[in-house]
Amino acid sequence: MKQRLRVIPLGGVSEVGRNMWMIEYDEDILLIDCGLMFPENDMLGVDLILPDISYLRENKERIRAIVITHGHEDHIGALPYLLADMGSPPIYATRLTQGLISVKLKEAGLHRTSEMRDIVPEEDVREGPFRIEFYRVAHSIPDGVGVIVGTPAGLLVHSGDFKLDYTPVDGRPTDMSKLSELGQRNVLAFLCDCVRIESPGYTPSEKVVGEAFDNFFAQAPGRVIIATFASNISRVQQVLDTAYRYYRKVAVVGRSMENNVRMAQELGYLDLPEDTVMRLPEVLRLPPEEAVILCTGSQGEPMSVLSRIANQDYSPIRIRQGDTVIFSASPIPGNEESIHRVINSLFQQGADVIYSALTRVHVSGHASEEELKLVLSLVKPQFVVPIHGDYRHMALFRKLARSMGFQDEQILLPENGTVMEFSQNYGKITGKISSGNIFVDGLTVGEVGHVVVRDRQLLARDGILMVVVAVDRRTGKVVAGPDLLSRGFVHGQPDEDIWDEARDVVLKALHHDGDTPSDWTFANRKIKDTLGKFFYRKSRRRPMILPLVMEV
Amino acid sequence: MKQRLRVIPLGGVSEVGRNMWMIEYDEDILLIDCGLMFPENDMLGVDLILPDISYLRENKERIRAIVITHGHEDHIGALPYLLADMGSPPIYATRLTQGLISVKLKEAGLHRTSEMRDIVPEEDVREGPFRIEFYRVAHSIPDGVGVIVGTPAGLLVHSGDFKLDYTPVDGRPTDMSKLSELGQRNVLAFLCDCVRIESPGYTPSEKVVGEAFDNFFAQAPGRVIIATFASNISRVQQVLDTAYRYYRKVAVVGRSMENNVRMAQELGYLDLPEDTVMRLPEVLRLPPEEAVILCTGSQGEPMSVLSRIANQDYSPIRIRQGDTVIFSASPIPGNEESIHRVINSLFQQGADVIYSALTRVHVSGHASEEELKLVLSLVKPQFVVPIHGDYRHMALFRKLARSMGFQDEQILLPENGTVMEFSQNYGKITGKISSGNIFVDGLTVGEVGHVVVRDRQLLARDGILMVVVAVDRRTGKVVAGPDLLSRGFVHGQPDEDIWDEARDVVLKALHHDGDTPSDWTFANRKIKDTLGKFFYRKSRRRPMILPLVMEV
Repeated sequence: MKQRLRVIPLGGVSEVGRNMWMIEYDEDILLIDCGLMFPENDMLGVDLILPDISYLRENKERIRAIVITHGHEDHIGALPYLLADMGSPPIYATRLTQGLISVKLKEAGLHRTSEMRDIVPEEDVREGPFRIEFYRVAHSIPDGVGVIVGTPAGLLVHSGDFKLDYTPVDGRPTDMSKLSELGQRNVLAFLCDCVRIESPGYTPSEKVVGEAFDNFFAQAPGRVIIATFASNISRVQQVLDTAYRYYRKVAVVGRSMENNVRMAQELGYLDLPEDTVMRLPEVLRLPPEEAVILCTGSQGEPMSVLSRIANQDYSPIRIRQGDTVIFSASPIPGNEESIHRVINSLFQQGADVIYSALTRVHVSGHASEEELKLVLSLVKPQFVVPIHGDYRHMALFRKLARSMGFQDEQILLPENGTVMEFSQNYGKITGKISSGNIFVDGLTVGEVGHVVVRDRQLLARDGILMVVVAVDRRTGKVVAGPDLLSRGFVHGQPDEDIWDEARDVVLKALHHDGDTPSDWTFANRKIKDTLGKFFYRKSRRRPMILPLVMEV
Repeated sequence: MKQRLRVIPLGGVSEVGRNMWMIEYDEDILLIDCGLMFPENDMLGVDLILPDISYLRENKERIRAIVITHGHEDHIGALPYLLADMGSPPIYATRLTQGLISVKLKEAGLHRTSEMRDIVPEEDVREGPFRIEFYRVAHSIPDGVGVIVGTPAGLLVHSGDFKLDYTPVDGRPTDMSKLSELGQRNVLAFLCDCVRIESPGYTPSEKVVGEAFDNFFAQAPGRVIIATFASNISRVQQVLDTAYRYYRKVAVVGRSMENNVRMAQELGYLDLPEDTVMRLPEVLRLPPEEAVILCTGSQGEPMSVLSRIANQDYSPIRIRQGDTVIFSASPIPGNEESIHRVINSLFQQGADVIYSALTRVHVSGHASEEELKLVLSLVKPQFVVPIHGDYRHMALFRKLARSMGFQDEQILLPENGTVMEFSQNYGKITGKISSGNIFVDGLTVGEVGHVVVRDRQLLARDGILMVVVAVDRRTGKVVAGPDLLSRGFVHGQPDEDIWDEARDVVLKALHHDGDTPSDWTFANRKIKDTLGKFFYRKSRRRPMILPLVMEV
């Protein structure tokens, strides 16, 4: 019998970010999430990375719908770039998630292109051969869901991003009854969030952050400036609630923070305590011990409000003695240096700074080791696939599943683009489709980025050196130059007359056996080689060398 | 009365690394430590950063001696670069530290230039007006000391790098009696290691690492590959001891690891259990459950043995199922991405990987919050100066000292180059000397680096674009070009004929009002401006533009 249910990650495995899953049954395709990823430090100049949708671009008429599990960047952020290329299929999302998607599409100047359809956790929907159900999950953003996809081959479950918070701020915990019910329904494959598996035990409830806020708001002698992710609506709620309890007023500052707060309030996901939110100028006129400023910048992002305050580049707010600044988010790996720079600078200007290394002003939104065991023991799938993690997280998840009695062939570790086929009692990795890194770089979106990024790495390490020579096109004689120009390159000693020597090296390379090479490609290579060796000897550096021979 | 005791950090405050202190009394100078610092991620292409010794270069005949507190890179690493410039004064160091300095000077091709003098913790020495005593401190390397400098103005204490480990591997804990004795001696100023102040409570003893090793060596089904710092002699000792207990043999791999182990053994700081250390080929011939490989690479350094193993680029060792790899060191901030890449790759090749996020295979060598309080309450200095930390650590130390009753004027927070003057009951910041970042870049050492690094940052972000035009020197007519060459730059759409347009832009810029500009500097600026605007409009990128007009 032909295996017809194919499950393929288009992004988000062996990496953290750009989550996107494709479920294909016969001629029908269902997508889950469409996120973006931020580049690593050595992906120089790259703005964003998107999932590879080459396959979808060629098969867009077969896409039935996109289901979005929740409103974080790594699950919705690629929609503005890719929605049109996929033929703008309908989007299923909960109301808050819809709100966040709309803000995002509007900011990108896109009018709503896809039809939005409500997810209501107790109602299921049908799209082609797929019967789709949803269940609530607690995470660091409200209104997240897990997804159950019924197919003729069997039941797939996608966990969404989740933790088992029994006391979430919005009062809507992960649906444990649904998870146990799944244990009775013979789940074929369970795709499970594994990113926090390195943490032993249980992830603390979002509630503990509120308790920490209580302390700091009570003790802060002056203004409180607090930074978190704009999408972290639960955190925003806790800031507002705490401010209200301590008779403080809150100014919400920064475009994305303002947009999200307005939207979440309109949709009823934020409960604004009476007279608590005010405009910034009004809050700044209050006595400092009554003022709270809520802004973005918890990751040290250079253009965020908090970084600008730290750089004394945000005119309404200057740090002064008595200010307390709270970073209510953990550093995303790779951001440590910029965050520390902001922290140091705030301290230097006289603020007291509270950050995650010091105390619990942030908790994770993902399940820790024991929670994963609990969920796995409830769902009891035939096959399990760790998702939403680096390879190390996935490998640790395999170890965990083994310890619970899963056999190796029941645990599938896909790469991006890996095709997993499932049918009754059957699950295997059977192939691979296109799975590149799609870079967003300025206005360009595409694979073109790879060579460019490699060049930037070379440029960044040792700089560049240009050599230009003009030669007579008939005689081949050098009529001007060689001129040398360098940027980002240092040589042995500033006073040494290395450049004259280098010019001689070039001239010799051009006339090595008395006559002139008529093939300028060859001459270029020759200049590059000899000059490269010359400078390596002098400086132990290998600048990129670009020779240009001009015929005049 | 003139204040004559001046204390100046030349590196190592408001940063972690390149520790170096200058103590000046009248005409005499005493130095403590001479370390290097590794660059941050955005200091592109820079290899190392050294302390600024401009002042010492001009006053080398006044330097009496350098005291080295212990053998870590951030305390000895700049010696090969700077010793000669300081006139090679005598170096005081304990025997292990001397060994590490000698290995370093030899590796740099330097014969021992300075006289080495033994530090014996119970004996004091005299250098000009300074009476110098030493006391033992426990740290992540054996044979560290704190330094007590008696001057006619009063007593200075430099804590060295320390923690209060009562059960260190070498059996030599921090000298608590000396610390309490200092409390009776009216210490004028105490310079105190503050880098781990973010950790509440006490730093665990190095012993707990040994207990963790016991578990992993007992459970590992095959070979154990373990990476740590080459200088971490105590960790090496624990690996050897554990291997011996579990009937395993150890191969020491990698140049710096081999050098340090040999030296430490010769000096009696490493106690090699019988028949435990063997050469790599012999160890590889053993059954896997009897093999241990000890190597460098715990920070993901690209050329280290462990990174090469992970990249399948170290021919003697290929990872196979059953191997256990242990990272016995915490990530230094900024190294997370490279470390995670190595971990992922080792997992992918089938190893089980144990690292600091998972379990206690490393402890810090520095004192945590409660230890700092304890030491401060023992030493009871008149003035206290937090050292060896970022500004945030120093600011937290100030908070801690305040909480213990110190007045603000008793707590001095210097920057690099800050002059602190002390005399009886007096301590104040009074000035500043030269304090740049001295970059080592290839063979170059010097300030030159700043412009170069800024250029590299620009190149790394948006790449470079060169424009070359040849003009007739008499008529000013364009006779060849404009030729455009780019590297690391992407434009709007690959298929667009943007280059032809750009060439037109250049030609127009050259002939803007009908005649030819005779001043080529002006022409260059014109090309740069118009082309810059053109490409920003097309690509939202600002590549570095280098125009070159050649007269032929």
